[in-house]
Amino acid sequence: MPYHAPLKDLLFDIRHLAGIDDIARMPGLEEAGFDTARAVLEECARFNEEVVAPLNVSGDREPARWDQGQVQTSPGFREAYRQYTQGGWQGLQHPAEHGGQGLPKTIGAACAEMLNSANLSFALCPLLTDGAVEALLTAGSDELQATYLPRLVSGEWTGTMNLTEPQAGSDLALVRTRAEPQPDGSYRVFGTKIFITYGEHDLAANIVHLVLARVTGAPEGVKGISLFVVPKFLVNPDGTLGARNDVQCVSIEHKLGIKASPTAVLQYGEQGGAVGYLVGEENRGLEYMFIMMNAARYAVGVQGIAIAERAYQQAAAFARERVQSRPVDGSLPASAPIVHHPDVRRMLMTMRAVTEGCRALAVVVAGAYDRAHHHPDEQVRRQNQAFHDFLVPIVKGYSTEAGVEVASLGVQVHGGMGFIEETGAAQHYRDARILPIYEGTTAIQANDLVGRKTVRDGGQTARAIAAQVERTEGELARLDLPAARAMHMRLGAARQAFLEVVDFMVGRAKAEPNAAYAGSVTYLMLAGQLLVGWQLARSLLVAQALLAQGEAADFMKAKIGTAHFFADHVLSRAPGLRDSIVEGGDSVMALPPEAF
Amino acid sequence: MPYHAPLKDLLFDIRHLAGIDDIARMPGLEEAGFDTARAVLEECARFNEEVVAPLNVSGDREPARWDQGQVQTSPGFREAYRQYTQGGWQGLQHPAEHGGQGLPKTIGAACAEMLNSANLSFALCPLLTDGAVEALLTAGSDELQATYLPRLVSGEWTGTMNLTEPQAGSDLALVRTRAEPQPDGSYRVFGTKIFITYGEHDLAANIVHLVLARVTGAPEGVKGISLFVVPKFLVNPDGTLGARNDVQCVSIEHKLGIKASPTAVLQYGEQGGAVGYLVGEENRGLEYMFIMMNAARYAVGVQGIAIAERAYQQAAAFARERVQSRPVDGSLPASAPIVHHPDVRRMLMTMRAVTEGCRALAVVVAGAYDRAHHHPDEQVRRQNQAFHDFLVPIVKGYSTEAGVEVASLGVQVHGGMGFIEETGAAQHYRDARILPIYEGTTAIQANDLVGRKTVRDGGQTARAIAAQVERTEGELARLDLPAARAMHMRLGAARQAFLEVVDFMVGRAKAEPNAAYAGSVTYLMLAGQLLVGWQLARSLLVAQALLAQGEAADFMKAKIGTAHFFADHVLSRAPGLRDSIVEGGDSVMALPPEAF
Repeated sequence: MPYHAPLKDLLFDIRHLAGIDDIARMPGLEEAGFDTARAVLEECARFNEEVVAPLNVSGDREPARWDQGQVQTSPGFREAYRQYTQGGWQGLQHPAEHGGQGLPKTIGAACAEMLNSANLSFALCPLLTDGAVEALLTAGSDELQATYLPRLVSGEWTGTMNLTEPQAGSDLALVRTRAEPQPDGSYRVFGTKIFITYGEHDLAANIVHLVLARVTGAPEGVKGISLFVVPKFLVNPDGTLGARNDVQCVSIEHKLGIKASPTAVLQYGEQGGAVGYLVGEENRGLEYMFIMMNAARYAVGVQGIAIAERAYQQAAAFARERVQSRPVDGSLPASAPIVHHPDVRRMLMTMRAVTEGCRALAVVVAGAYDRAHHHPDEQVRRQNQAFHDFLVPIVKGYSTEAGVEVASLGVQVHGGMGFIEETGAAQHYRDARILPIYEGTTAIQANDLVGRKTVRDGGQTARAIAAQVERTEGELARLDLPAARAMHMRLGAARQAFLEVVDFMVGRAKAEPNAAYAGSVTYLMLAGQLLVGWQLARSLLVAQALLAQGEAADFMKAKIGTAHFFADHVLSRAPGLRDSIVEGGDSVMALPPEAF
Repeated sequence: MPYHAPLKDLLFDIRHLAGIDDIARMPGLEEAGFDTARAVLEECARFNEEVVAPLNVSGDREPARWDQGQVQTSPGFREAYRQYTQGGWQGLQHPAEHGGQGLPKTIGAACAEMLNSANLSFALCPLLTDGAVEALLTAGSDELQATYLPRLVSGEWTGTMNLTEPQAGSDLALVRTRAEPQPDGSYRVFGTKIFITYGEHDLAANIVHLVLARVTGAPEGVKGISLFVVPKFLVNPDGTLGARNDVQCVSIEHKLGIKASPTAVLQYGEQGGAVGYLVGEENRGLEYMFIMMNAARYAVGVQGIAIAERAYQQAAAFARERVQSRPVDGSLPASAPIVHHPDVRRMLMTMRAVTEGCRALAVVVAGAYDRAHHHPDEQVRRQNQAFHDFLVPIVKGYSTEAGVEVASLGVQVHGGMGFIEETGAAQHYRDARILPIYEGTTAIQANDLVGRKTVRDGGQTARAIAAQVERTEGELARLDLPAARAMHMRLGAARQAFLEVVDFMVGRAKAEPNAAYAGSVTYLMLAGQLLVGWQLARSLLVAQALLAQGEAADFMKAKIGTAHFFADHVLSRAPGLRDSIVEGGDSVMALPPEAF
């Protein structure tokens, strides 16, 4: 099943929701207007459709293989990666001074979606490299930056994030990997890291591991964690590769999905200690890692959208072709393609509305990132940063849960054929399942949303965003259109529900933490429904205006219909979520732990 | 991960919700009181825990294998099946006159749940044999019954259902397999059938295929379909096995899950025609198949409960062991087992409440089946038949969708470990995904619920069931207990929502079929929430009464807490579903088919 990049939709969001031409007026982004966006996206679409997407199924069937510490990636991956780096795709949104193209995240995120739709397993390698670049930009010394950044930005080398250990998953306080200071200022690293995506592979000449470890004598808990660069091959002063470092890939995992991406167990320091270099200051590792993780969490949210898009395309194509049963309204005299059946339509519309809506929200959040980093007015930068930070756990949590749901509906649309591996729908269902787990489970995102993002500022950011939603409702109220009326009603009810939950969280999180956090994931889902619905409402308003100007009628009508569907069938669930959170906090913890 | 049969819960439902001692007062079921139920269930639990469950993981890793038309089942399956038949388990609920034990379905369904929890792939073989028995009991001639029933009831031979063809999935009007009458009264069958569960295997000496086909000259569409017995080996007049029949297994499928159950493509008539025997009358095949399918649909609903139970047990065990992070309420000074975290608790409670609730409903529906078949009063039989028939698509549709959701939550509870195949949680997620598809997708169940079960009698059965729910609400109102108050409020709102949807369906299904059927699956989910909630409400009432008598305090308290959770966190969603159905019918079909 070929992949067709949803260019029209991405460009609609970039232009009309994120406001790319407005972003391109900010210092440093002058090249990044709509025409640039279109040119880059078109080129990116071609590359991903033609080079990366065809390796998705074959990579699943012939996963990465481990042999004596070496990992051989799936057939075709090396050549595709070579073309990826040659095309300059790795550096798209990284600073020009390190060899990147310095494009805004608004464009970069759209390109990332396409890469992930084309091949989730392949895309993980660049995703992790981006994270390493982000960490070094944040806290790396000039020397570390000079040594590593140009090679990472070009994709000549790749990056990894090493957090997890067998006993330390979500709980980084339990990290045991240790780093011993050496007289030359370097460290020797000892320990075992697991679940290291692309921790070993044959795509690039070197791998730059970013590793959380404790310096000898550091405090207990998360306050004693530092961040290190540990390259697979040491780098000579002239930039050439030196000795093999003391880090070994002892195995890779046998996984449910994303099988072409090697997930490594890495052993550091079996032969005297792996040479590592401190990033920033000792004991501030978690802080740096969080910056890197915020970028990675956003990127994983985009993966959710990407897999949803791919699953939707596959299901829609099947539904247009597969002939079964007469339409229930008698509109056709014989068995018809199943796209004519109302429940198939409901599934496809759910898939489409959720995918387009999550995409719209992600693009808007990317726009906020760009404004937070480039806008000349500090006040605007601060507002956008707060908006962005509030939204990251929602983009991550909501879009990835949506990815799983959409992929599951994709199987269902196929009926029995969906359960047969050769059809391809099942791969998306398997691949998608990791997304609400890695880079922080949905519960971790929800804790972040409740604690750091909602309660810490007393609900201020949350209410400011709700006020923006309310302004959109005002615009909807001026349209005499069934879709606008439905959206107006459902958006208002969802906003009200959201505000009540915000009050509940702010009021209870400290006094009754169990009752509050019992509703954390439901709150995240409610916030996701509201804010995704809000962006679809904005899309509806734009589409209606452009339709009146005679622009792209089919596309604009579909946009309006899709927003209408989301209002009726997703936003309508929001008040129920409120009830569950506000009135159901106690029953979650009613049974004692030993009852399970 | 060993399986522990939930005997306490099953026996609670059988005794207090289905009323086994009442059932045992009906003619023909005098042996089937509570003591029998307990003895049978305990024996069944032991067999499934010790013999069948240990083959679940190994069967997934070493699936059934096809070689030149032969299928070798997974290691250990032959021996386990031998013990299954030797224990008389196949005949549990089949008539004594054909060698069965004649136990009520109320007991049989509980045993089926355990078999399916132990090993979904293994359990499919007996499930299909049950279907074949049902079909022959319904419409088979004395001769067919005498030849086949004793061997099927004993499990010496197994049965299959052959409906699907490459072009005919849900749409049986498209069946092309043909049957040519022979002078001796038999037929020759020609055609290709796909997705035939246990269509070929090495567990039994013979396989009895029940095949839908068209007799030469039969009418087009479903009115021209007849049902045939086509044995793998012909049966000599003395009952010994004769020649190999002209049916070949040309391949088996490579599936997402239930890998140990061979899914065959069967080719009939490549060498002159497979010998088949007509079941009942020509052109009435679909009618007989529906009887068999009703039993099979109920059984697949039970599979949903079974996989949910297994996934729950695995997740609960992990959550009790896995230590990560301090509890948010500060109740423990150090990192604690994750069962202490509110969102883990929310997931476990969701899994548990949905599983127990679906089980309760399924057991009650089995009780209705027994009353419909054995009650001396015809009026009571009719009422129970109507209740049973209304509930079958709900048990099938709701419990299987629940199975997928619960299995997915099971992966999530495990975090990153859930994505690693060796952990075992992923297998449940893969296995569960077929359940909302086979024996009629959720949409097919929903069509049945709307058309045949709700609209045909003008909503009468639906409203009668709602009136029963209302009586339970009255009992709840008399209890001064937070759980009872929450349940009373949510059940009332859900019932109201259900009744409004019933009115909507009755009023619109004919005039605006698209708008009505667009809400069919959502209606099924709403009905499922209501009726599962109702049974949990009844459980709450029983548990509270027994608690007052000092009985099994921990179990009864957990029952009450679980019902409370379901009210707060599942029933609370019902009004949103109503809105979606009643007010959202148009937006489902708003986009033209070519927009997808």
